[in-house]
Amino acid sequence: MKLVTFEQNGNIFPGVMKGDYIIKLASFVSLRDLNFSCHKCLLPLIEASDERRLGLLRDELGSISDETLKKLAGDGQAFPAGSVKLRAPILRPPAVFCLGFNFRSHAPELKRPVPEVPVIFMKPSKAVVGPDDNIVLPKVATRVDYEVELTVVVGKGGKKIPKADAYSHVFGYTVLNDITARDIQQRDFALMRPWLRSKGFDSFAPIGPCITTSDELTNPMDLELKLTVNGEQRQKSRTTDMVFDIPSVIEYISSFTTLEPGAIIALGTPEKIGQLHDGDVVEATVEGIGTLRNRAVLE
Amino acid sequence: MKLVTFEQNGNIFPGVMKGDYIIKLASFVSLRDLNFSCHKCLLPLIEASDERRLGLLRDELGSISDETLKKLAGDGQAFPAGSVKLRAPILRPPAVFCLGFNFRSHAPELKRPVPEVPVIFMKPSKAVVGPDDNIVLPKVATRVDYEVELTVVVGKGGKKIPKADAYSHVFGYTVLNDITARDIQQRDFALMRPWLRSKGFDSFAPIGPCITTSDELTNPMDLELKLTVNGEQRQKSRTTDMVFDIPSVIEYISSFTTLEPGAIIALGTPEKIGQLHDGDVVEATVEGIGTLRNRAVLE
Repeated sequence: MKLVTFEQNGNIFPGVMKGDYIIKLASFVSLRDLNFSCHKCLLPLIEASDERRLGLLRDELGSISDETLKKLAGDGQAFPAGSVKLRAPILRPPAVFCLGFNFRSHAPELKRPVPEVPVIFMKPSKAVVGPDDNIVLPKVATRVDYEVELTVVVGKGGKKIPKADAYSHVFGYTVLNDITARDIQQRDFALMRPWLRSKGFDSFAPIGPCITTSDELTNPMDLELKLTVNGEQRQKSRTTDMVFDIPSVIEYISSFTTLEPGAIIALGTPEKIGQLHDGDVVEATVEGIGTLRNRAVLE
Repeated sequence: MKLVTFEQNGNIFPGVMKGDYIIKLASFVSLRDLNFSCHKCLLPLIEASDERRLGLLRDELGSISDETLKKLAGDGQAFPAGSVKLRAPILRPPAVFCLGFNFRSHAPELKRPVPEVPVIFMKPSKAVVGPDDNIVLPKVATRVDYEVELTVVVGKGGKKIPKADAYSHVFGYTVLNDITARDIQQRDFALMRPWLRSKGFDSFAPIGPCITTSDELTNPMDLELKLTVNGEQRQKSRTTDMVFDIPSVIEYISSFTTLEPGAIIALGTPEKIGQLHDGDVVEATVEGIGTLRNRAVLE
């Protein structure tokens, strides 16, 4: 299933894709016990998810006929995908973890060794924006880069999760464009300073367009990632080039901090990072999830 | 006012100190419109705070006579401070920002220059624990240090807050002990890696014992900080030794990220950092706020 958060007439709702339609989650009998307040959106589903519940939802979604879909649309329970604004699938993740130098092809670009243990940093949750939101290029940065990344959405939380159990803690996957003020990052590297500012400006964590549930993305370690700017290809790689695979990353992060439902982990970017300019349209795509499209605008 | 979050019979409540008593905030007429759910605790008050409301609360608190206090205690609305467990005053801050090398006396200890711009990093919100909770020393770290820090609690949120307005965004102050796996930090420094892991283990951000509202702490840039281990003095300094003052720090952080109500900003530690061992009792004190006491226990 492809789950989304969308805005309609100023209100925000969680939904699920059915063909070219988005259906409100609140209309599903199998989710009647969940409280989908605007504020939390998909989080109640993520927090309450187990295989049984997701199975019921999948069955209910599968059983919706074209006729029923038309009726739902008439009742204001379903909308053509193009008619609503997509928001970040998780409006405010409890934590945004990111991997640095996690593609063999990328570390050499920044003249850094391929790491021997995962390189983990955080972005402020306020940096998260959605599909169609702008990436704001701060005036204080001389070079702001794109970075396409496959991103894990944590389902069941936990601490010290062993590799063997890691996938059972994955609710699904989304795309994150790990926007980076490269000039600030390089200065901070040289001074052995934290990475927060160069990675943490507001709007530096676009995510979306949806969360593909893990049952539908059974091969996350062999997916194509690509990124275009104004339609021109810039990045293209496969997750097979990752240094640390998903179970290793989950084991490592949860070895020091408790992972919570809805936390996201961006798994690092492949080679051919590059700069965004005012007005650029950047499209970050991961196979099986979709395309996250944002415009860069100068502050 | 000194605001606290406390646990009583397994439930969690926000409260305010009156002498040696803690009174539940829910019993105040001036706060009747706020919804103090367990989950959010003091956040509704912080989010809804303006001078008028805090003035009303202060007046109402001041008007409580000894007799009324006794009656409140009889009705289960007030408790002797020693009879309840204090929790972190903000159970889950929306963001935990920390300053590095922000005391002139401290940077040389780690053979680092006094910084020319603020050094900012984040801890995961899950690292926050309260007074009386244990600091867990991870087995993978060979040296875990204490660091006493005056900490701002953000009231009114905002972006690009100028220095001149900064104090109007401060709800109050608490104490944070910035627990640090020093051996891991030094390794990460050498590799130009992020600071997250060395600063981010669960329980590495004890805060408390209370939030002193800003109207009662009018001289935050001239307060004594001290820290003892098993009663023996280890750190002692004044906030006059800070490199970047509170308005400069708020201006800097809000220049890149939106500050939210309830976010906390730990302002850095003075000289004489040192190691914690299994069983140590560490007491971090800031003048006008109180003493945050935790026991260190080996994982």
